[in-house]
Amino acid sequence: MLEELKAKVCKANLELVEHGLVIFTWGNVSAIDRSTGLVVIKPSGVSYDDMKPEDMVVVDLDGNVVEGDLNPSSDTPTHLALYRAWPEIGGVVHTHSTYATAWAQAGRDIPNIGTTHADYFHNAIPCTESMTEEEVKGAYELETGNVIIKRFEGLNPVHTPGVLVKNHGPFSWGKDGFDAVHNAVVMEQVAKMAYIAYGVNPNLTMNDLLIEKHFNRKHGPNAYYGQKKK
Amino acid sequence: MLEELKAKVCKANLELVEHGLVIFTWGNVSAIDRSTGLVVIKPSGVSYDDMKPEDMVVVDLDGNVVEGDLNPSSDTPTHLALYRAWPEIGGVVHTHSTYATAWAQAGRDIPNIGTTHADYFHNAIPCTESMTEEEVKGAYELETGNVIIKRFEGLNPVHTPGVLVKNHGPFSWGKDGFDAVHNAVVMEQVAKMAYIAYGVNPNLTMNDLLIEKHFNRKHGPNAYYGQKKK
Amino acid sequence: MLEELKAKVCKANLELVEHGLVIFTWGNVSAIDRSTGLVVIKPSGVSYDDMKPEDMVVVDLDGNVVEGDLNPSSDTPTHLALYRAWPEIGGVVHTHSTYATAWAQAGRDIPNIGTTHADYFHNAIPCTESMTEEEVKGAYELETGNVIIKRFEGLNPVHTPGVLVKNHGPFSWGKDGFDAVHNAVVMEQVAKMAYIAYGVNPNLTMNDLLIEKHFNRKHGPNAYYGQKKK
Amino acid sequence: MLEELKAKVCKANLELVEHGLVIFTWGNVSAIDRSTGLVVIKPSGVSYDDMKPEDMVVVDLDGNVVEGDLNPSSDTPTHLALYRAWPEIGGVVHTHSTYATAWAQAGRDIPNIGTTHADYFHNAIPCTESMTEEEVKGAYELETGNVIIKRFEGLNPVHTPGVLVKNHGPFSWGKDGFDAVHNAVVMEQVAKMAYIAYGVNPNLTMNDLLIEKHFNRKHGPNAYYGQKKK
Repeated sequence: MLEELKAKVCKANLELVEHGLVIFTWGNVSAIDRSTGLVVIKPSGVSYDDMKPEDMVVVDLDGNVVEGDLNPSSDTPTHLALYRAWPEIGGVVHTHSTYATAWAQAGRDIPNIGTTHADYFHNAIPCTESMTEEEVKGAYELETGNVIIKRFEGLNPVHTPGVLVKNHGPFSWGKDGFDAVHNAVVMEQVAKMAYIAYGVNPNLTMNDLLIEKHFNRKHGPNAYYGQKKK
Repeated sequence: MLEELKAKVCKANLELVEHGLVIFTWGNVSAIDRSTGLVVIKPSGVSYDDMKPEDMVVVDLDGNVVEGDLNPSSDTPTHLALYRAWPEIGGVVHTHSTYATAWAQAGRDIPNIGTTHADYFHNAIPCTESMTEEEVKGAYELETGNVIIKRFEGLNPVHTPGVLVKNHGPFSWGKDGFDAVHNAVVMEQVAKMAYIAYGVNPNLTMNDLLIEKHFNRKHGPNAYYGQKKK
Repeated sequence: MLEELKAKVCKANLELVEHGLVIFTWGNVSAIDRSTGLVVIKPSGVSYDDMKPEDMVVVDLDGNVVEGDLNPSSDTPTHLALYRAWPEIGGVVHTHSTYATAWAQAGRDIPNIGTTHADYFHNAIPCTESMTEEEVKGAYELETGNVIIKRFEGLNPVHTPGVLVKNHGPFSWGKDGFDAVHNAVVMEQVAKMAYIAYGVNPNLTMNDLLIEKHFNRKHGPNAYYGQKKK
Repeated sequence: MLEELKAKVCKANLELVEHGLVIFTWGNVSAIDRSTGLVVIKPSGVSYDDMKPEDMVVVDLDGNVVEGDLNPSSDTPTHLALYRAWPEIGGVVHTHSTYATAWAQAGRDIPNIGTTHADYFHNAIPCTESMTEEEVKGAYELETGNVIIKRFEGLNPVHTPGVLVKNHGPFSWGKDGFDAVHNAVVMEQVAKMAYIAYGVNPNLTMNDLLIEKHFNRKHGPNAYYGQKKK
């Protein structure tokens, strides 16, 4: 079942390796088939070296394994929480990519200080609150999803498709698994550039006009970047 | 038309990938044929993976598409402004390369603090002023070119072939597309070294004599670097 | 003798190169056959380029060469001290990997500030005391092992499988040579991320609940990461 | 003439590329045949991509081209000054490698703060004085050699086989061209690690006992690192 989606999710997971976002078995990509409500996700703790589409695990939105011989990623409940909360997303990615994870460890939002950021993320990439004892000792991975969702109250997850979980690392999402990976790559890049930029000038400032301009140039109703209008 | 120039511009765009200056569809190279006043530029939002010379777009100096099935880079009006202002340049490059973009986000000129810089850029690599509401909401990409040109009042663009657009990223230029790419690579490298150097010693100083010596060793009337004199 | 172990130790040494932890002849991996008490270790000062299993040297726990035409790594006495002190370990790695070595030079423990760290190391990765004149001028490599062992008084070496030797570099260990290499790679990665994180926020704090949660998720009695429970 | 040495010098130059120390035509390696007093050096401004042994230039110690169709490196007079001053060296390297150049731009000696440094360089890697107007406007490349030699008054160039020319970049040397390249790679690595280490702890200290121990372990009369004693 969902053979095409499994192939795509497998390929999207391998893109994490190609872009240098993961080592060993770290990181995971999932994507959802909204017509059936089924999610395809990477198995837990399996090497990328010989990962095949048939290793992907199919779960329903309640976390029941519907197909697959392997355990799904231990982060599956986080992915599912995001799919349930945000019907407009189709793929989710989690990595421990170097610079984004460092910002998460620092407990700081990545501020929007340049057009690279504004091309993809309307706002600062938010960092969640510290998780409580109840959350950590309870259904931890589900609660990780919940603190993300709580942090996005008042924010549009489609316009800011990524988050830092404090002392943990980044999650990103998109219209499908590939788009979520794309946003994970950009998040790592803007995290790196922001780190360097503040090293150069701790008192730097952004021009808010540029945020609106660049975000809308790509994502607004009159977007004119790329070949889409053809 | 301009088949040779299209092949060169395509190749120069791919050099951005080889030198690690761009990811995804970011960045663009153009070159001008001064005899006809026509500019060849990368199409907007197209992947480098399967980019071919025939994908390049030909525009005139007013921005009219003369040949090509794809939209030209959304940064085309910036390139054209530079070609119109500076008849001595033959190629223009724009990237979001990591360290140069970080300096742009920091809003700081990259100071000339070593011979690597002085071999290619006579002065600090300047950072533009913040763009005004009028400029951002108006013909934004054209105005980006105009703020660059304004920043170079009193500076020789041939002697300092690059600029940082504040909160955005670097543009560079040269006698042709390859030369502009070469200068983009050097700009990224000097941006990285300057960042580290100030980390080592925030109070470092340059020896201005070295600037003149090295710049002229390569670019002065008695240049003696390389094999050119043969 | 121990042909299978030699092949594994050779392969584990080459993994140091693949993961970018060593250059030239730097670094070394060993593993122990607990049934015979024999240790297989990389030869001293030999290039990785043409290293073969038969180049590996077999020594007993007192450091006598039992088999092999080459000198064993000059760090052999350090490896042996760890094997003698900690019967639960099966492999040892030493590198001068960039970020871990920098923390060792800085003389600072790498604090546990994120789940990446907590997934593998229960505590901060400790840095040893400065070695005394007696230790440096005496049986130096043996004493290096001894200062590591002394630093672990009150710590569980299986739960925190790595150390920084002050002004020198990292050692790591694991259940076999590959596991020790794995921990060396993680140590380098957490050293890099901690460096960046403190650059972003010098006053960052960790959530201790996450340490327990993540460490136990992988290593506790009810571990549920990966496919092991199947 | 000197065909074997030309092949070696060509290969040593290409090692600069493999180790990531140079881009474009930057950097140069030379080696001397002490029996004839002839020096083989890379030609000026020639791409590494298609560099062949027969492109190498042969000069005498006074800088006269003895063989070769191309101009020798513009840094040739610096190399020759070092060969004349220090009969014990057989190869010289110049690069603009990132971290070593940054320290040169910072105008700071690279302090000896770890065993990686002490394994190769007995002392801090010194940074020269700022060059005077007379030196820069005179025989500049020769004078670059002279400021290096002056900086080494009281230092042993064999025990500390590298230097930073202020606001310029590193030079290294060794018993032949390959050894000089080896030292250039180590210098870049210790420059990077020292930069990071001081970022972690600006007040770090070295244990001088380790310097003597490690330097002598590799270079002293009773050296026991590697396979040399066999």
